[in-house]
Amino acid sequence: MINETYKKMLQGKSIIRELSEYATARGKEIGYDNVFDFSLGNPSVPCPDDYTDGLIHMLRDEDPMAIHGYSPSLGIESVRKAVADSLNRRFAMDYEAKHIFMASGAAGALAHAFRCVTVPGDEILTFAPFFPEYTPYVNLTGACLKVVPADTKNFQINFQALEQVMNERVMAVLVNTPNNPSGAAYNTETIEKLADFLYEKQKEYGHDIFLISDEPYREIVFEGTDCPYVSKFYDNSISCYSYSKSLSLPGERIGYVAVNPRCKDADVLAVMCGQISRGIGHNCPASSIQLAVAAVLDKTSDLSVYETNMNLLYEALTGLGFEVVKPGGTFYIFPKALEEDAGAFCMKAKNYDLILVPSDNFGVPGYFRMAYCIDTEKVRRSIPVLRRFVREEYGRQE
Amino acid sequence: MINETYKKMLQGKSIIRELSEYATARGKEIGYDNVFDFSLGNPSVPCPDDYTDGLIHMLRDEDPMAIHGYSPSLGIESVRKAVADSLNRRFAMDYEAKHIFMASGAAGALAHAFRCVTVPGDEILTFAPFFPEYTPYVNLTGACLKVVPADTKNFQINFQALEQVMNERVMAVLVNTPNNPSGAAYNTETIEKLADFLYEKQKEYGHDIFLISDEPYREIVFEGTDCPYVSKFYDNSISCYSYSKSLSLPGERIGYVAVNPRCKDADVLAVMCGQISRGIGHNCPASSIQLAVAAVLDKTSDLSVYETNMNLLYEALTGLGFEVVKPGGTFYIFPKALEEDAGAFCMKAKNYDLILVPSDNFGVPGYFRMAYCIDTEKVRRSIPVLRRFVREEYGRQE
Repeated sequence: MINETYKKMLQGKSIIRELSEYATARGKEIGYDNVFDFSLGNPSVPCPDDYTDGLIHMLRDEDPMAIHGYSPSLGIESVRKAVADSLNRRFAMDYEAKHIFMASGAAGALAHAFRCVTVPGDEILTFAPFFPEYTPYVNLTGACLKVVPADTKNFQINFQALEQVMNERVMAVLVNTPNNPSGAAYNTETIEKLADFLYEKQKEYGHDIFLISDEPYREIVFEGTDCPYVSKFYDNSISCYSYSKSLSLPGERIGYVAVNPRCKDADVLAVMCGQISRGIGHNCPASSIQLAVAAVLDKTSDLSVYETNMNLLYEALTGLGFEVVKPGGTFYIFPKALEEDAGAFCMKAKNYDLILVPSDNFGVPGYFRMAYCIDTEKVRRSIPVLRRFVREEYGRQE
Repeated sequence: MINETYKKMLQGKSIIRELSEYATARGKEIGYDNVFDFSLGNPSVPCPDDYTDGLIHMLRDEDPMAIHGYSPSLGIESVRKAVADSLNRRFAMDYEAKHIFMASGAAGALAHAFRCVTVPGDEILTFAPFFPEYTPYVNLTGACLKVVPADTKNFQINFQALEQVMNERVMAVLVNTPNNPSGAAYNTETIEKLADFLYEKQKEYGHDIFLISDEPYREIVFEGTDCPYVSKFYDNSISCYSYSKSLSLPGERIGYVAVNPRCKDADVLAVMCGQISRGIGHNCPASSIQLAVAAVLDKTSDLSVYETNMNLLYEALTGLGFEVVKPGGTFYIFPKALEEDAGAFCMKAKNYDLILVPSDNFGVPGYFRMAYCIDTEKVRRSIPVLRRFVREEYGRQE
């Protein structure tokens, strides 16, 4: 008989996906140029030419058996070594290949990290606002996601709320910095305070608490932002990374788990990922893509467009009187809606072909997310439309 | 705290992997040409040139945003449609794109299929001899793998044993034809009899029983072998496929789940796979590889070498008096060992640099597996060594 748990999930449709599908359909009606689609977090710049050139060269000149052959279950050794070296160079860490597990993007990396450090019944804490997919990602492992309410002042961590939600069943804390949807980057003070809090709770509860850091936006950090490398501050930490955003390869499903060498289980956690894979049918990223990415590890796509877009939107939104925290990174901005019901606000915006995502699924009511990974020219053109929308619907003027 | 279930698994090392590592190490000592390594089921012929040429063309001439962009969670629509069409052409089925879920190889496909049709506590039956990874694949879903003893006469199904193992908790039956490790292909009579048996048990128990067919060797079938398409015979069936063997792309992790259109849940099972993915962190195969494979769906690598190798070995083994069922496909052969303890037999063979895998982990004691996906020239050179081994150790002469 078919599994009712998964069958029931078919009823709950993602609001982001629904809005994105609406935008595509509406684009067919009135021309996609006339739809200001801020729904999806999909990179808007191509991968670096070096990636393409390197892959073509490899396909043309190297042994197909080597390029397309089975990857060892933890990833190709030379690729793991290259990832460790690159992290060490950039963040002054001491990773070795044995601390790296190649995963199919951040979703794959998180699926392994969660299972490494929890058993069914345990709790994993995260902080609002948060990526809505964390809920099924965690809950379907058998653990339970608990959400710490937001500090809407600056979208750093609300430590008072954290103290209230924290309890002995919490085996892992999940952070995402720079953050989807707020764009906020946790600063050094926040991370230090979180690390101190977790060290204290480990002592109090007498068990390890892991800090799992989801870092797909690590390379998209704006000028003047303090966005430190999380694992530098806490020993029991696991970094989950994806090349989806930095190299604009979201469909190629490549990222990794990096286990902090100072964690007391540092020697077994990556190998455990290999065992976890047997249960979840995960396999390493495609061999050819592992090899091609390893050749461009310290490069990125031209990510400057996201900062340009952010500045344009931040200025326009503040000019219109929106309450909004200036993003430190990512390609998201998360302003307060002009009425309490963010869903109603976004529905009205839709009439102006402005596709905005209401915040309720991100764990904070009354806000909306704009994903500005679109052409700068389109961001510019969206501003008068935004202006007209808030004037006509809410009587706001600049 | 770290998860003890996965930590404990670190102690159990795969015998196949151990032997393969030994062969590699031994190769470094005496030259790899002198090690007759029959341990690993790794394709020994390159992927078709059309695959490489198509992928290079795509990388060079097409929009990187389209090639490397997110795949929809069930796979790229045009790829799913192409897979359905190819199956319909070849097996006179009625698949539509909605019945196809693109998966990261057969392991990924099975992980989804198992979760679709079982809940923790259910049983999944399979038939000895079987691929040892089925045990963790199934057991880590929370269901339980039960094994039906082999019919060692011909490695078809032992129906008497099946009747004894069958019970109401069985929600799925897993077959693998052509079979790893025996090389046997289930013939029409076997599949028909199995279908009849399952239809009857569905009625008796009042619940669905799914037939999950693991088919990575479907394209490696030898002359004169009757190896029908399993889903033609039973409505509640799910076919799990991988291109690892047919296109020699084992590291590229691409395959699919194909849900029988005649199954009563045909419209929801593939979509459920998309939900299951959220829990297991699976993501579709890499977008570029989906697109490249879709362009060569009806092609294969030059697979004829496997039949050549099989004939050489079968003749040599029978000539030496081994009891052995002639394989109908795959690149495996599974003879009876010359003493009861297959482990001891394979240990002795190792002294002759013949790397053979004892059968115990495949669910049948007293046999051994040879993976003959190696150069034909090396197969030829292995025969005198095999001859010397059985003469010196067991006094056998041709």
